[in-house]
Amino acid sequence: MSTAGWLTVVGTGPGDPAWLTPESAAVLSQATDLVGYERYVARVAGADQRRHVSDNREEMARARHALDLAAAGARVALVSGGDPGIFAMAAAVWEAIDDQTEPRWSGVAVTVVPAVSAIQAVAARAGAPLGNDFCVISLSDNLKPWSIIEKRVALAAEADFAMAFYNPISRARPWQLGTALEQVAAHREAHTPVVIGTAIGRSDETLTLTDLGRFSAEQADMRTLVIVGASTTRRVQAPDGSERVYTPRYYPAPT
Amino acid sequence: MSTAGWLTVVGTGPGDPAWLTPESAAVLSQATDLVGYERYVARVAGADQRRHVSDNREEMARARHALDLAAAGARVALVSGGDPGIFAMAAAVWEAIDDQTEPRWSGVAVTVVPAVSAIQAVAARAGAPLGNDFCVISLSDNLKPWSIIEKRVALAAEADFAMAFYNPISRARPWQLGTALEQVAAHREAHTPVVIGTAIGRSDETLTLTDLGRFSAEQADMRTLVIVGASTTRRVQAPDGSERVYTPRYYPAPT
Repeated sequence: MSTAGWLTVVGTGPGDPAWLTPESAAVLSQATDLVGYERYVARVAGADQRRHVSDNREEMARARHALDLAAAGARVALVSGGDPGIFAMAAAVWEAIDDQTEPRWSGVAVTVVPAVSAIQAVAARAGAPLGNDFCVISLSDNLKPWSIIEKRVALAAEADFAMAFYNPISRARPWQLGTALEQVAAHREAHTPVVIGTAIGRSDETLTLTDLGRFSAEQADMRTLVIVGASTTRRVQAPDGSERVYTPRYYPAPT
Repeated sequence: MSTAGWLTVVGTGPGDPAWLTPESAAVLSQATDLVGYERYVARVAGADQRRHVSDNREEMARARHALDLAAAGARVALVSGGDPGIFAMAAAVWEAIDDQTEPRWSGVAVTVVPAVSAIQAVAARAGAPLGNDFCVISLSDNLKPWSIIEKRVALAAEADFAMAFYNPISRARPWQLGTALEQVAAHREAHTPVVIGTAIGRSDETLTLTDLGRFSAEQADMRTLVIVGASTTRRVQAPDGSERVYTPRYYPAPT
């Protein structure tokens, strides 16, 4: 085909199909080709769509492949979990385009559509821990030096942000989460709420509400996100007797 | 009725109905009563649903009213724009519950469901400016002192986060956005990308890509969100010749 196709970067949301937006569903149904990590593609692929699955660590190669397919006329959905704009494939696509101009990609329409990110699902289950200013940090030091992560965590703790941690732990990165939370603990009380959400939106989801003093990195795995409260974050008993965590919208004036 | 109803805090997403998740749509269709700011309720209400609309500034009263309705047996959807967990009604509901225990609320099931937040829609339109670590700050000093906002902005700038600003400007708060960006400019180059997204997802949406050196607070209004890039955030020309902004997933090692 000589007509350029399109490449749209979509997200499935964090697992529950009820979190897939109608816009993303429409893009997926219009696509001729789905590109992405096998688990995400399998979740959404139709019978007549070409699947191009790859390892989760080959983001740049995957982005270039998706652009090549679109340049050849395909309608390509590049599939992320969660929101493609938050620690996912959207940045990889723009990196690939910025990295090396390929004349054959000329004219391809590249679009990103927003989706629910995993941290929003964890926050909703927990109550409203991100109800005031917060920051979002990936603890993976595969692509950035640990020194910048450590600096960001320390300054965010000093700024009294609630903090959401993506990629908290893996077999190859066993100590980063514990180290980051020790750093936060230097600025916050031991009773500061911590939310540990694992596989939220899937049938085996678990949510644990604990605090900085009792937190252990062994409570997290590769499918976990961790939220650490600000100094103002509070526990509250819900009307049905269950427990939640929220960060009030107000902030006390300094005394 | 003596049986307690339920209260679910939902978000419509930032404007485009194609961003309303199936879960939120199901909650809205099952509700007998919709509570919220008039504009949000009007967007989603069915003909046979009771509407309880209020001014956008009366969050606590609205939360208590929604709890009272649920306690009386209603199935209540409390409607936010965007994600209810991010600068919206979820925190207000937990605040109301924490503030004063009302025995009549006992047994009401209170649930928060996640949704697409406005900043994700702005980021998607712009490219991928939130593709690496970022922070989210409301510039409204209605409920928190300006000193804490200023401290957070300064530390976030030092931490080299990309920054997303909610509630950047209003008639009552004309100078806060300009002051915040001046503070960021003390830490970042004048060519640092700035994204100005107004009414994204609506028919009159506008998106402006500029930089710290050229930014003017007059480019923003009450329906605007502003994203300021990190030092690593870059402009890129899309294959169709249009311009985007993204923050790479990698971060250079300190030299």
